[in-house]
Amino acid sequence: MPASASSTASANARAAIVGVSGYTGAELARLLAVHPHVRLTHVAGASSAGKRLADVLPSLEGIVDLVVQPFDAERIAKDADFALLGLPHGEAAAKATALRAAGVRVLDLSADLRLTDAAVHVVWYGEDHAGALRSEAVYGLPELFRDRIRSANVVAVPGCYPTGAILALAPLVREGLVSLDGIVVDAKSGVSGAGRSPSAAAHFPETSEGIRPYKIAGEHRHTPEIEQALSQVAGRSITLTFTPHLVPMSRGILTTAYAFSKEGALADRLREAARSFYADSPSVAILPPGRLPDTLWVRGSNRAHLQYAVDTRTGRAIALSAIDNLGKGAAGQAIQCLNLMAGLPEGDGLGAPAVFP
Amino acid sequence: MPASASSTASANARAAIVGVSGYTGAELARLLAVHPHVRLTHVAGASSAGKRLADVLPSLEGIVDLVVQPFDAERIAKDADFALLGLPHGEAAAKATALRAAGVRVLDLSADLRLTDAAVHVVWYGEDHAGALRSEAVYGLPELFRDRIRSANVVAVPGCYPTGAILALAPLVREGLVSLDGIVVDAKSGVSGAGRSPSAAAHFPETSEGIRPYKIAGEHRHTPEIEQALSQVAGRSITLTFTPHLVPMSRGILTTAYAFSKEGALADRLREAARSFYADSPSVAILPPGRLPDTLWVRGSNRAHLQYAVDTRTGRAIALSAIDNLGKGAAGQAIQCLNLMAGLPEGDGLGAPAVFP
Amino acid sequence: MPASASSTASANARAAIVGVSGYTGAELARLLAVHPHVRLTHVAGASSAGKRLADVLPSLEGIVDLVVQPFDAERIAKDADFALLGLPHGEAAAKATALRAAGVRVLDLSADLRLTDAAVHVVWYGEDHAGALRSEAVYGLPELFRDRIRSANVVAVPGCYPTGAILALAPLVREGLVSLDGIVVDAKSGVSGAGRSPSAAAHFPETSEGIRPYKIAGEHRHTPEIEQALSQVAGRSITLTFTPHLVPMSRGILTTAYAFSKEGALADRLREAARSFYADSPSVAILPPGRLPDTLWVRGSNRAHLQYAVDTRTGRAIALSAIDNLGKGAAGQAIQCLNLMAGLPEGDGLGAPAVFP
Amino acid sequence: MPASASSTASANARAAIVGVSGYTGAELARLLAVHPHVRLTHVAGASSAGKRLADVLPSLEGIVDLVVQPFDAERIAKDADFALLGLPHGEAAAKATALRAAGVRVLDLSADLRLTDAAVHVVWYGEDHAGALRSEAVYGLPELFRDRIRSANVVAVPGCYPTGAILALAPLVREGLVSLDGIVVDAKSGVSGAGRSPSAAAHFPETSEGIRPYKIAGEHRHTPEIEQALSQVAGRSITLTFTPHLVPMSRGILTTAYAFSKEGALADRLREAARSFYADSPSVAILPPGRLPDTLWVRGSNRAHLQYAVDTRTGRAIALSAIDNLGKGAAGQAIQCLNLMAGLPEGDGLGAPAVFP
Repeated sequence: MPASASSTASANARAAIVGVSGYTGAELARLLAVHPHVRLTHVAGASSAGKRLADVLPSLEGIVDLVVQPFDAERIAKDADFALLGLPHGEAAAKATALRAAGVRVLDLSADLRLTDAAVHVVWYGEDHAGALRSEAVYGLPELFRDRIRSANVVAVPGCYPTGAILALAPLVREGLVSLDGIVVDAKSGVSGAGRSPSAAAHFPETSEGIRPYKIAGEHRHTPEIEQALSQVAGRSITLTFTPHLVPMSRGILTTAYAFSKEGALADRLREAARSFYADSPSVAILPPGRLPDTLWVRGSNRAHLQYAVDTRTGRAIALSAIDNLGKGAAGQAIQCLNLMAGLPEGDGLGAPAVFP
Repeated sequence: MPASASSTASANARAAIVGVSGYTGAELARLLAVHPHVRLTHVAGASSAGKRLADVLPSLEGIVDLVVQPFDAERIAKDADFALLGLPHGEAAAKATALRAAGVRVLDLSADLRLTDAAVHVVWYGEDHAGALRSEAVYGLPELFRDRIRSANVVAVPGCYPTGAILALAPLVREGLVSLDGIVVDAKSGVSGAGRSPSAAAHFPETSEGIRPYKIAGEHRHTPEIEQALSQVAGRSITLTFTPHLVPMSRGILTTAYAFSKEGALADRLREAARSFYADSPSVAILPPGRLPDTLWVRGSNRAHLQYAVDTRTGRAIALSAIDNLGKGAAGQAIQCLNLMAGLPEGDGLGAPAVFP
Repeated sequence: MPASASSTASANARAAIVGVSGYTGAELARLLAVHPHVRLTHVAGASSAGKRLADVLPSLEGIVDLVVQPFDAERIAKDADFALLGLPHGEAAAKATALRAAGVRVLDLSADLRLTDAAVHVVWYGEDHAGALRSEAVYGLPELFRDRIRSANVVAVPGCYPTGAILALAPLVREGLVSLDGIVVDAKSGVSGAGRSPSAAAHFPETSEGIRPYKIAGEHRHTPEIEQALSQVAGRSITLTFTPHLVPMSRGILTTAYAFSKEGALADRLREAARSFYADSPSVAILPPGRLPDTLWVRGSNRAHLQYAVDTRTGRAIALSAIDNLGKGAAGQAIQCLNLMAGLPEGDGLGAPAVFP
Repeated sequence: MPASASSTASANARAAIVGVSGYTGAELARLLAVHPHVRLTHVAGASSAGKRLADVLPSLEGIVDLVVQPFDAERIAKDADFALLGLPHGEAAAKATALRAAGVRVLDLSADLRLTDAAVHVVWYGEDHAGALRSEAVYGLPELFRDRIRSANVVAVPGCYPTGAILALAPLVREGLVSLDGIVVDAKSGVSGAGRSPSAAAHFPETSEGIRPYKIAGEHRHTPEIEQALSQVAGRSITLTFTPHLVPMSRGILTTAYAFSKEGALADRLREAARSFYADSPSVAILPPGRLPDTLWVRGSNRAHLQYAVDTRTGRAIALSAIDNLGKGAAGQAIQCLNLMAGLPEGDGLGAPAVFP
């Protein structure tokens, strides 16, 4: 799809990235470097302030010629209409508040603003950093909240695991095709989800040739986020089991979700529900029968591949999704929201297929 | 553990490998090359007959000086007391029958003899190749059937997925700590499980940086094998959902099994059940609380690492295991059975820790 | 760089891919799917004819809606102005001849037309398939032959290894900064260079966790291609040692080239030569002092990263390059040539940075 | 080779590991855990003191039941006859001196004692930590210095890169088959060589799918070590170019060394020289013609695979070696030396083939 197809936008939007040296920041920069209607005008970072962006991200050498700035909300307000925050939770909300005060529309990729109930946030994150901003924030999953995102001034971009789990399960939950009790979400993520700071958990020799679960049995903070979105879709409260795993690859999340099938729904019925649910969603593809998702097929893209099955021996429905955790699971999704906020086509600048192989 | 600890065996056993050029054959050769009390005296193969073994497996260059022979049951009977078959299902049973007729004790690593009910075998494999041998075969999972294996003349070495799933779940099933209905086994395997023949599914560029499910929803042939063993442990029939995944690594299976916890059993209780169940099993370790299994920690070894958790928010028990699919999931387990059959200590020649990292 | 920057082209060019199901074909389809001024109008393939392209390349699901056609030069002439051939050597030349006869401008990614001397081609490839087309073909390395490519009707797109080696060494050879005798090119490639057909050499378990040389000591067919281009640059015949290696990664070629430094040239002088040589080349970046190339920084892009050093202890100059073997080493370079042939800016549709990490 | 083959040793040797939590320490522990005639009696470490060894190295869970001790030379002298030091350079020499004073025979795997000339050490490492111990230390490459190692009280175990380079080149240098000027050593290492401490350079997402050179053009500290050993073999001073690369795999070093062939020596002659040179070396295999080394074939073993070629077009000899950087390149080699020092067969406990695949 040629970029010019989206030329109804009368003017370019200008965007800033705050926290540009981490992986979500890097992915935002990569996508904006070739976005046809959004211009990257400002990059900010703490540890990398004062450096050429290409010294922090050599992949941008000769492509993006910006210098990383220390954070300054007023300065960003001069340079940009939108700010994308690739910051750790706990740091993002304060900067988002400052940027809002300066008149900048904010897309926060951290967890600070995702949970609508401050009390639930406190349970999982220890304290509430969001303040008044929480009630203003819209959950940035376009496939569920497209219209609210268009007019939002603050968007809380979903976590990577929640994106994969919600996209896979939402159509089944909406149409009552599965039991809301006993859902299991078994997710497998690439290592970039752990961020760019070196750690034992992401040290190559301890990660390659090994797969392992972590933060199981209700310990991972993405659990309430998945439950919140699916509960909204269902119209009643859902509690589920979420098990993340670390896979020896850089990018990608595969979600294998289990739920008891209801009303004898078989795979065709589940796929039909998904196709209907995502009819207007350019980033989602329901795979044809017989093809199962593979994170390799979405690597580097903003796409979600979904597939469904029912184990008739046990009555179990299986909902599968593959996304790129940094793409549709973070930076791509943020750009998708920004497009909506800027009046651009939702998929503008996001049409590139996966880099396969 | 010095190998000399097992020197109670008065004489060396002699072993042959049939189908030596595949990955299970290669792993058998690797283990027998340094086994203190079993001597590798004969290797047979179809495609590689006539070649030096080290030309088929260069890792054995300068270590094993055997030439691959065409299959000949009588010749094997002269050279060896035991034959280990690393052959595709459908090919193994006939050779096992010939070897038994020649007086050789057989360990078959294929699926031909694993299911006790020929009718079930036909459902999953199309036809029954085992004939009379099926009733004679003992399922070669020492942790469950140690005593029967000692005196067996034919052992059906379990599949890799079943080994991981059964070891994780058996203690919980035995003690009634989980509901027998609604069990989900979500397993993640390295690529060597697909065998040594090149295929699109194991082609490096289509495998690296991607994770994918395959043969889901009751299609994978290891399903009835898991169900058979757990049903034997439970004393009643169990049907479960089994979902295999392919992970971009060469070796290892991580099993994440879900079952509804019963009687308020928490993680400590589950671990206690496992410790008791595996008290006499040198190849199984129950990890201490707080440490989750990683296939990297068992790579190249005959060990199984188990861990347990309960998600108290949902009442779900999670049983985890990590094994090397070629080690405890195939060749290591076969040697473990051979040791028992030969009157050697069960762990003889199998004490090497994982190659970490 | 917004795609609209290149909108001086009055009309879209139309392109066909022949041999779309291999990796170079797949990469061509990926790049053309979002090219702002070239439209992918036709895809042809032998084994995949009749299938939806998205069934052959699921990464294109929902993005490209073409059906693979059997090869038909007349039909392609109707649908397209340019044909890109992603075919094995020996197959390409005949199809290129047919397409030329039908009036289609051809970019051949095989080796059939790269060597200018048919006799040399016969030495390395056994027979000459090119016929009259050989003399018409222009070697498609824009950084060396930009002007000739613009008006060419037949372009022989360089091999992946030659691209990396020539780009690294050409500036030094041109300016006489290194001795032309005793050059060593030690190159390290990702596995996708071996193509999409499953083979033992690219089987995941035999490729992961291993690095190995192959076709060393003058056996690899890219040797004469490197020598031909550097000889043209030097104005005299060059013979060199080329050693390819297979690295456990999907994409990328790192080239480490050694030559004796002349006239006391140090690293700064070598970098200066390269900066001057590539002043008008949008796809080439000379890295700043202190940063060494990494294939990860160019993965998925059309970029070449170069760096230079001199070992003053031994008088040895070291020229380094990193490219993506499927990008700048194949499909990206082909599009770069097509842009020139179509009167578009050389970097049109090729500005996307690497997918990092 | 059954372990019992080495039972001529009348008593078990006792060994301590100092610095057990790093990768060389871990590999030493792995090998000693199953060594038939050397008992691991003591493990010491700084950061991990007080912990169960199996908590630091879960691969040893249920296998080794030792607690990590703070360093105490007297205590080690009580527990062990030999101490193996897996410590950073600069830390090792002082502990080695203390251990010698307490009567313990020392194998130091750091660089502190490898260079015989203190002045050269200072040039490359900044200061000399070895003191009087330097003159006492024997360079622990058994294939070159077998006899001196037997009676040594202090052995400086070679670096990983030097082991690969020296083993490949020594036979050619010894027999004068190559020119001693203009040698290039292009080496490719797995990531574990960077140690167990997390770092940006070994962070999975920045390492996977990328290959890169580092410390090129005479900056890497293994350069003088390679030159020292080859100069000793040649009987005159050799200066060479050494270029290390980091490969996306955990273990292994492939060395591709280039030298001008002399006296028309072809591949057969080079192989013959190597076979003669390593006739008594159980850890070295010269591969048969037509098979090139692959680090995968030696992974987890103490073996070195060598191969030779001559590019007759350019007169260049190519010497290739593959080793496991933690095995023959570190811990395995240390055990090999310890065996010699203890009067055991050189290959005792080191006969295990590579874990393939």
